[in-house]
Amino acid sequence: MLKIGVIGCGGMGRSHIDRITNRTQGAEVVAVSDVFEEGAKKAAAIAGEGTKIYNNGKDLINDPDVEAVLIVSPGFAHVDDLLEAIKLGKRVFCEKPLCTTAEDCKKVMDAEVASGKHLIQLGFMRRYYKGYTQIKDAIATGEYGEPLIMHCTHRNPEVPTSYDTPMAVTDTVIHEIDLCHWMVGEDYDSVQVIMPKDTKFTHSKLRDPQIMILRTKSGVTIDVECFVNCKFGYDINCEVVCEDGALKMGMPLAPEIRKSASLSREITTDCFVLFKDAYDEEIQNWVDCAAAGVIEGPNTWDGYLAEVTADALVKAQQTGAIEKVETVEKPEFYK
Amino acid sequence: MLKIGVIGCGGMGRSHIDRITNRTQGAEVVAVSDVFEEGAKKAAAIAGEGTKIYNNGKDLINDPDVEAVLIVSPGFAHVDDLLEAIKLGKRVFCEKPLCTTAEDCKKVMDAEVASGKHLIQLGFMRRYYKGYTQIKDAIATGEYGEPLIMHCTHRNPEVPTSYDTPMAVTDTVIHEIDLCHWMVGEDYDSVQVIMPKDTKFTHSKLRDPQIMILRTKSGVTIDVECFVNCKFGYDINCEVVCEDGALKMGMPLAPEIRKSASLSREITTDCFVLFKDAYDEEIQNWVDCAAAGVIEGPNTWDGYLAEVTADALVKAQQTGAIEKVETVEKPEFYK
Amino acid sequence: MLKIGVIGCGGMGRSHIDRITNRTQGAEVVAVSDVFEEGAKKAAAIAGEGTKIYNNGKDLINDPDVEAVLIVSPGFAHVDDLLEAIKLGKRVFCEKPLCTTAEDCKKVMDAEVASGKHLIQLGFMRRYYKGYTQIKDAIATGEYGEPLIMHCTHRNPEVPTSYDTPMAVTDTVIHEIDLCHWMVGEDYDSVQVIMPKDTKFTHSKLRDPQIMILRTKSGVTIDVECFVNCKFGYDINCEVVCEDGALKMGMPLAPEIRKSASLSREITTDCFVLFKDAYDEEIQNWVDCAAAGVIEGPNTWDGYLAEVTADALVKAQQTGAIEKVETVEKPEFYK
Amino acid sequence: MLKIGVIGCGGMGRSHIDRITNRTQGAEVVAVSDVFEEGAKKAAAIAGEGTKIYNNGKDLINDPDVEAVLIVSPGFAHVDDLLEAIKLGKRVFCEKPLCTTAEDCKKVMDAEVASGKHLIQLGFMRRYYKGYTQIKDAIATGEYGEPLIMHCTHRNPEVPTSYDTPMAVTDTVIHEIDLCHWMVGEDYDSVQVIMPKDTKFTHSKLRDPQIMILRTKSGVTIDVECFVNCKFGYDINCEVVCEDGALKMGMPLAPEIRKSASLSREITTDCFVLFKDAYDEEIQNWVDCAAAGVIEGPNTWDGYLAEVTADALVKAQQTGAIEKVETVEKPEFYK
Repeated sequence: MLKIGVIGCGGMGRSHIDRITNRTQGAEVVAVSDVFEEGAKKAAAIAGEGTKIYNNGKDLINDPDVEAVLIVSPGFAHVDDLLEAIKLGKRVFCEKPLCTTAEDCKKVMDAEVASGKHLIQLGFMRRYYKGYTQIKDAIATGEYGEPLIMHCTHRNPEVPTSYDTPMAVTDTVIHEIDLCHWMVGEDYDSVQVIMPKDTKFTHSKLRDPQIMILRTKSGVTIDVECFVNCKFGYDINCEVVCEDGALKMGMPLAPEIRKSASLSREITTDCFVLFKDAYDEEIQNWVDCAAAGVIEGPNTWDGYLAEVTADALVKAQQTGAIEKVETVEKPEFYK
Repeated sequence: MLKIGVIGCGGMGRSHIDRITNRTQGAEVVAVSDVFEEGAKKAAAIAGEGTKIYNNGKDLINDPDVEAVLIVSPGFAHVDDLLEAIKLGKRVFCEKPLCTTAEDCKKVMDAEVASGKHLIQLGFMRRYYKGYTQIKDAIATGEYGEPLIMHCTHRNPEVPTSYDTPMAVTDTVIHEIDLCHWMVGEDYDSVQVIMPKDTKFTHSKLRDPQIMILRTKSGVTIDVECFVNCKFGYDINCEVVCEDGALKMGMPLAPEIRKSASLSREITTDCFVLFKDAYDEEIQNWVDCAAAGVIEGPNTWDGYLAEVTADALVKAQQTGAIEKVETVEKPEFYK
Repeated sequence: MLKIGVIGCGGMGRSHIDRITNRTQGAEVVAVSDVFEEGAKKAAAIAGEGTKIYNNGKDLINDPDVEAVLIVSPGFAHVDDLLEAIKLGKRVFCEKPLCTTAEDCKKVMDAEVASGKHLIQLGFMRRYYKGYTQIKDAIATGEYGEPLIMHCTHRNPEVPTSYDTPMAVTDTVIHEIDLCHWMVGEDYDSVQVIMPKDTKFTHSKLRDPQIMILRTKSGVTIDVECFVNCKFGYDINCEVVCEDGALKMGMPLAPEIRKSASLSREITTDCFVLFKDAYDEEIQNWVDCAAAGVIEGPNTWDGYLAEVTADALVKAQQTGAIEKVETVEKPEFYK
Repeated sequence: MLKIGVIGCGGMGRSHIDRITNRTQGAEVVAVSDVFEEGAKKAAAIAGEGTKIYNNGKDLINDPDVEAVLIVSPGFAHVDDLLEAIKLGKRVFCEKPLCTTAEDCKKVMDAEVASGKHLIQLGFMRRYYKGYTQIKDAIATGEYGEPLIMHCTHRNPEVPTSYDTPMAVTDTVIHEIDLCHWMVGEDYDSVQVIMPKDTKFTHSKLRDPQIMILRTKSGVTIDVECFVNCKFGYDINCEVVCEDGALKMGMPLAPEIRKSASLSREITTDCFVLFKDAYDEEIQNWVDCAAAGVIEGPNTWDGYLAEVTADALVKAQQTGAIEKVETVEKPEFYK
């Protein structure tokens, strides 16, 4: 039974505590921490009696009862807790982003490499969605040849007015940044952003929709339509065009309805509905791997690459030009 | 240029006159007849100046300018005109039904056989719908083995209150009666009708929906869901289950629409929209065949078989039992 | 933690032990039994050290450490173990069939009623398949009106030569017998079997395909195409035609593949692949309900009804006639 | 009956002659011309006895029996015949391209404007494909708001080795150039070409696949995946993302086939199969409009715009940069 401490007791944190407590095999939450005492108490109640409560991550990480740490605090607060956990050699599941600057990501990466142990898994849960794994598995058969192009859409029904142009990268396409490089097994070379005509549903601080183009080192080209006020649904699509065939992600199981002169099926409007099973799989996989002392999911390098690529995309939003993705050389440790 | 006389100038008659005049190669309407002078005049106006007008079929058929006859009068009036046309050796396109009794059908069949010439084509236009011909062609490749079962639906949005239980056979499933025996290349052995729970949208004279079961001589079993107040659309489906695979008729070309949390495509509510091209093909084929002196479409035997099978189904609606389809032996002439 | 004893250590038994041990929250296997010692030992190894081994169900049921019993032995052996478990008031999950005769089913039902406690859940796992629950939920909204007709297919790639005509009922359509009455919330009135032309892939002891027709007390009519040598896949379909719309079960998530002049998606050939999640849900639900002292899944009455309906269908296979489904009156206890 | 002269008797020319002779109402071919006497004779034979044969376009155009001219000669030869036809005020259907340089296009446009009569229709037949007109009609309802983005694919199974990089523009995406600006009712502002990793099936003179990006004056952004050695089929797709919904072109009617563990439908490999009806509609519409003295199809401005846009795309293939589409101001005459 893996004893987990959870740092960050907001909505997502409580959701993970519920998941570990009620739908994950082989793990339990033994401690929680939050700067807000109220949130920490609520979270502890989900985990059950006897759960310890801390008001900072450092103390939680240092609790000898805590074997592994789940970080769900705001992104800017990640770096210190990550370094502390590495120092103590404790396994970490960290919600995205790894850190909010490339420098901090690199600091964490260097510390992990120096520790000699793979300790950190990032919360890019889409890698656990069956829709994607089916395509990745199909590519891996070799039957379709090399991937050449990926077409993606990331459409949300709507976003709050606080959501602005850079957030299309940092909050939305950040998922495709991780996912696509994982799907084709390659890091990025350069990026570009194209701004189509705006929808009437956006405001002066948000260009919407946007088309983001990512290019891997070997030239695989990925276009992502990011449309966060599309109104009609949470509509995630992905087609990989290969040399010997093309693979398009299927739609989730739903009834075909005949009514009112139309044959239809629902498109969900809720990302947590679409990816519910993926979240469960992600945590279960981390727990299983932690027990085995390995990491199968996205690692620190993936977190660093995502951060650097996101920076390049945000720059490309402003310049309209093709921007290079400049990383340090990938450490042997992550190959 | 095949010179055609049209008997019957109601809606369907005028539609055929428009078709021949404006969308058919190698034919023209030279004469029309109807008991109602007004209707005949309107119809003649569609065909253009110089179109002759008759008030009865016999005179039209005997007009030496008329090379071929298109009969679109009510079913009960068909038999006399058919016999007259056979007597004069003129080619006939006759809207369904051939005649309204098996006896009259047989009389016409005997006259045609005696004449030694294939003269009559029946208006079962579904044989010209690409959805069906694609499946018939696929079966003919042999790649799917022998057909064993057909599942059909014949759904209408609604029917007038004058529509009653037997009309589910004579006006609706009559199409499947012809089509299915043509698809599998066999005549019927027996039929049955099952009456499910009624829809709230029906009335005391109409059992709706109904399930009709037809069995061919070799045992191919066809079930037809006939649901004429289904509300949602004119929804025609057909799946042929064979020994080595199953073939389902596709849906017509229509946009996939994402809107309001739904991915949808239209189902037409109008049979003339769905089968528009099939009607055009049907008449063009008859004209082309008339020029070549042959009949490729449904013939007099098909009309007789449809009538006898419909009689058995109407009986089966009342008895609830399996009813035999009793025909005379198929004349060599039609094999 | 619910302590479970498993009776029957064949393939299905071991699969359930693995499920409870590795994918179910709140339960563990503490004892197993099988007449074959080897099988029992293998099964115990899956459950882990300390699992007790019995060579008969009675002893296992009477073990005070066993709180709940999972019966996966052959159908003929169920009755005694069920009665024993009822006597001791222990909760039971029993793989289908409840018993192999209507008499034995009734004996068990009477005993359970007499005990005054709902103890037995039947292993009709399809009720836990999302494809079906989505449709049941849609019907329950009332938006589609009353169900009138259900069209089902139950197609298997192939069956062993030992599979004969009655097994199409007892091993195959038994699933639809339970499922369809649950979907529409009604018991059966009568049944019929229609035998189409046989596929070339069958043998003298097996009519294949078959069309089974079930009619509920209010007249909802269900047709099931049972085709166990269809060759192309494990192809389960279900469409419910209602007064205000029709609902067709969707297909599971799978990539759309463009290759070799074809747009295709896989049809699984393995029922355990299609229903993997449903099996997990089923057991988890039983464990959760056992803890709460209730039964949400198929109960003893459902098992009795399935048995009586199956008997009527087997008779109908021989007579070709419409056969009544004659049950005792449904006890208040199960309403 | 519109009397047509056809210039150019290659495969496409003969196909049009067959179309006019056998599948078009209200027109006939009275004269043909080709520099190769053999080709002209073969073509005349299709049109029937009495068809006149010329060895140059000018004489054919000046034949007083020729009321309208269909130009199917190679692109470089169009300009002289177009100017001659304008001089004589004869109606023209001209296969794409209008001319092979922007200068020649402009010369023809100026002459037509000066003539004061709309005489020329271009052979962009996709505007007559139901797949596209359904979407254009849907947009026109206003129900989906303004178009913002179009995603297109233009995939061919393979091309001959003589096909090189610029031909991806001039022979392939030239269709989308016309179609997309027509769909959204706007001219282009700028273009860009992105070169993904090459497929193994291409050669040193052909970058394949390519992603072409076109931007209209109001900012509607169109991406076209051009992949001419995709192997799997002639696969044409188009999705228009609007403010209030997205519209994706449907697939043509085809059976759904269950066989070999797969549910599939054919993708055609032949553009003439996909667009057969569109070719027929296109010519019929031109004939009908010629009789009415109007042009509904693509006109000389469209031909000029396509040429200028194609030039910009070919330049963009070399520069990798965003290239402006520089046209003269659109004459009032074409608004």
